[in-house]
Amino acid sequence: MAAVVGSLVRRLLRSGPRPGLCGAGGREPGAAPRRAIGHGQVAVELDSSAGVAVMKMENLPVNSLSLDFLTEFLISLEKLENDRGCRGVILTSGAPKIFSAGLDIMEMYGKSTEHYAEFWKAVQEMWLRLYQSNMVTIAAINGSSPAGGCLMAMCCDYRIMAENPKYSIGLNETQLGIVAPFWFKDTMVNTIGNRATERSLELGLLYSPPEAHKIGLVDQLVPEEKVQSTAAAVMSQWLAIPDHARQITKSMMRKPTVDRLLAHRESDIQNFVSFITKDSIQKSLQMYMEMLKQRRG
Amino acid sequence: MAAVVGSLVRRLLRSGPRPGLCGAGGREPGAAPRRAIGHGQVAVELDSSAGVAVMKMENLPVNSLSLDFLTEFLISLEKLENDRGCRGVILTSGAPKIFSAGLDIMEMYGKSTEHYAEFWKAVQEMWLRLYQSNMVTIAAINGSSPAGGCLMAMCCDYRIMAENPKYSIGLNETQLGIVAPFWFKDTMVNTIGNRATERSLELGLLYSPPEAHKIGLVDQLVPEEKVQSTAAAVMSQWLAIPDHARQITKSMMRKPTVDRLLAHRESDIQNFVSFITKDSIQKSLQMYMEMLKQRRG
Amino acid sequence: MAAVVGSLVRRLLRSGPRPGLCGAGGREPGAAPRRAIGHGQVAVELDSSAGVAVMKMENLPVNSLSLDFLTEFLISLEKLENDRGCRGVILTSGAPKIFSAGLDIMEMYGKSTEHYAEFWKAVQEMWLRLYQSNMVTIAAINGSSPAGGCLMAMCCDYRIMAENPKYSIGLNETQLGIVAPFWFKDTMVNTIGNRATERSLELGLLYSPPEAHKIGLVDQLVPEEKVQSTAAAVMSQWLAIPDHARQITKSMMRKPTVDRLLAHRESDIQNFVSFITKDSIQKSLQMYMEMLKQRRG
Repeated sequence: MAAVVGSLVRRLLRSGPRPGLCGAGGREPGAAPRRAIGHGQVAVELDSSAGVAVMKMENLPVNSLSLDFLTEFLISLEKLENDRGCRGVILTSGAPKIFSAGLDIMEMYGKSTEHYAEFWKAVQEMWLRLYQSNMVTIAAINGSSPAGGCLMAMCCDYRIMAENPKYSIGLNETQLGIVAPFWFKDTMVNTIGNRATERSLELGLLYSPPEAHKIGLVDQLVPEEKVQSTAAAVMSQWLAIPDHARQITKSMMRKPTVDRLLAHRESDIQNFVSFITKDSIQKSLQMYMEMLKQRRG
Repeated sequence: MAAVVGSLVRRLLRSGPRPGLCGAGGREPGAAPRRAIGHGQVAVELDSSAGVAVMKMENLPVNSLSLDFLTEFLISLEKLENDRGCRGVILTSGAPKIFSAGLDIMEMYGKSTEHYAEFWKAVQEMWLRLYQSNMVTIAAINGSSPAGGCLMAMCCDYRIMAENPKYSIGLNETQLGIVAPFWFKDTMVNTIGNRATERSLELGLLYSPPEAHKIGLVDQLVPEEKVQSTAAAVMSQWLAIPDHARQITKSMMRKPTVDRLLAHRESDIQNFVSFITKDSIQKSLQMYMEMLKQRRG
Repeated sequence: MAAVVGSLVRRLLRSGPRPGLCGAGGREPGAAPRRAIGHGQVAVELDSSAGVAVMKMENLPVNSLSLDFLTEFLISLEKLENDRGCRGVILTSGAPKIFSAGLDIMEMYGKSTEHYAEFWKAVQEMWLRLYQSNMVTIAAINGSSPAGGCLMAMCCDYRIMAENPKYSIGLNETQLGIVAPFWFKDTMVNTIGNRATERSLELGLLYSPPEAHKIGLVDQLVPEEKVQSTAAAVMSQWLAIPDHARQITKSMMRKPTVDRLLAHRESDIQNFVSFITKDSIQKSLQMYMEMLKQRRG
């Protein structure tokens, strides 16, 4: 996996900074050394006394999972994973009203085959790293979380969502004519069981916070202003458990699912590339983007 | 599988019409060409504008799954599956108070080994076709649904049941001293999870509508007179999803379960034949049938 | 497996009687022949007319699963299993306020490698026999049931717990820095599903009776004085089902899980031995035992 991250880092350095995608949160560029490599799309704050980091996604406006964002996310996560002073991570959003909108559609339209493969490898890598993290991972879901955003939340050990009726969460790929990959499906089955997953995926359902809580897609609902403090309080409960025993237990629970992707990683990339390069899909994506433009305009 | 259906069709033609088993629903014999092959035990109405067919089981009095019935059911389903104008099927009953009573006991008593094998192959085929249908399948459960009737309902994408306290649903084989086959069990595990299935099958439980709803065996309860209209309304929600993405998703969810039967299909037939030909089982079935006769008499 | 039990019996005979560990329940030593082999740590009462035995664990003060206790438990269970007059077993505790405290820590501290292996083999054997019992097994949980105690309860076909708020149940190994073995995990997944198990095991959760009931870890709560009578009433419902069909069904549900341990039985023993002989673990156990002593003193 180191090779993959290496390749991602090289790509990122090659691509150079992209002003306009950064700038959220009132941070001074370059002030925090841990953000120097990236583009400031992931703000990391490590509370060394507690051993807990907050990773705040800040790829405005909707925290799309672009290749750049995923690369920075992976580097940030890797750093924390290797930092003995960090035992837990709270994943949250710095974007208003949204946790993450999922995969960046721009990475899937009008690009080269190589680009699609590289992008998909990064999506896989994000899942592999987050789902298997040795740290306690808590999703502080302070906004809507469709598709890939829901996947990120499901990768965490615990999910706290703001009980704002305007927010929703789910794997809604089918509604867009897309099929969630088998490891998205496996992650959801592990979280909410087979039948709820079947219905969710066939209909591409997005759940309101109470619905999501009822089926177990999120573990806890709190008023929006209490999402972060609740995450911190829950984290301290999790950190009361000896790390080693918890880590082995987590690995025992999740390894079979991880091994399934590892066994089919290349074919999964090929599937994605051959699907996304279809004329019909490219046309659908074009129409979808035009619709989005008109909505904003 | 075409070979199997071919064999079933040949058998059906060989056996000739069986007047007395038809006659339900006030239909004129031969009026609907799609029913010409069968014996009128499955009434199919296709609403071409909606792309939705209603398959009404009419093997009175209790929609027993006889070999004839299964053959006609399979032919009807196959026709709809191949009809591009049909995207969804509502499976319901034309018999009063019962959805389907499950496998026809007459097919399991006093027949030849070849007959038992042919019958069991048809039961497998029904499950394979219905569980994997490319169409949206909704069970409008307007009556009791034990054993094989419950299996048919569980094969569908969504289950709506009349909230009539006299109705029940479940895999009650154990109560009769019979063991539900492993693929009945797999289908139930996929629907209600492992523990609820274990208890259900060990005790041969039949659930009232509220109990069935609580454990997720059915998705929705409605007053009896609203079963059909609710099925139509739910169907239109499911048809809002692009077919292709929904079909691939459904296949991804169900293929492992289907593959298990395909890998053990012949041994499953042998198991059934060697079980049903046992003296003790034949005697039990005889006693059971005499009990049924006395009840009716 | 006969070899294993044989080895356990030999060991037990070798070790001789241990007065002081017996004596509970006001029984006269030697009065009941079925208890002659053991040390009176398991009181068995068989109601021949009902075909139901009550196995009362009486290894005071907390029904620790010591090697001696497990050996006697296995012999008692085996006898009932081979007794055609016994169709069901109610497993309960004769110790006040506790069902079973789980594995005996004394068997894991300061002993030889051979001893650890023999002990672990007995724990595996208890699980294999109880989880696959041909008899109907009902846990009458009349006290707290952590770790191995929870495992024993989960092995049964049905769990009834006293709704005493002081009692708790769960696999809390992680809290002690220990990892529940994969077959403990499998048993819990089969009982309460994947996600609830993941959270339970990562946090080493102990549930109050209402919580345990809500997640399905126990099937029924009753006032403490009604635990035994409810168990007897539920047993008669289960015994209404023909044994043969119920047994095959139970085996169909549980065999895959059993086969996983059988396939990895030796490596599972090696894992336990190499874990428990670590200096760090031996030191932890020493500290834990001193803490327990101080609490009591």
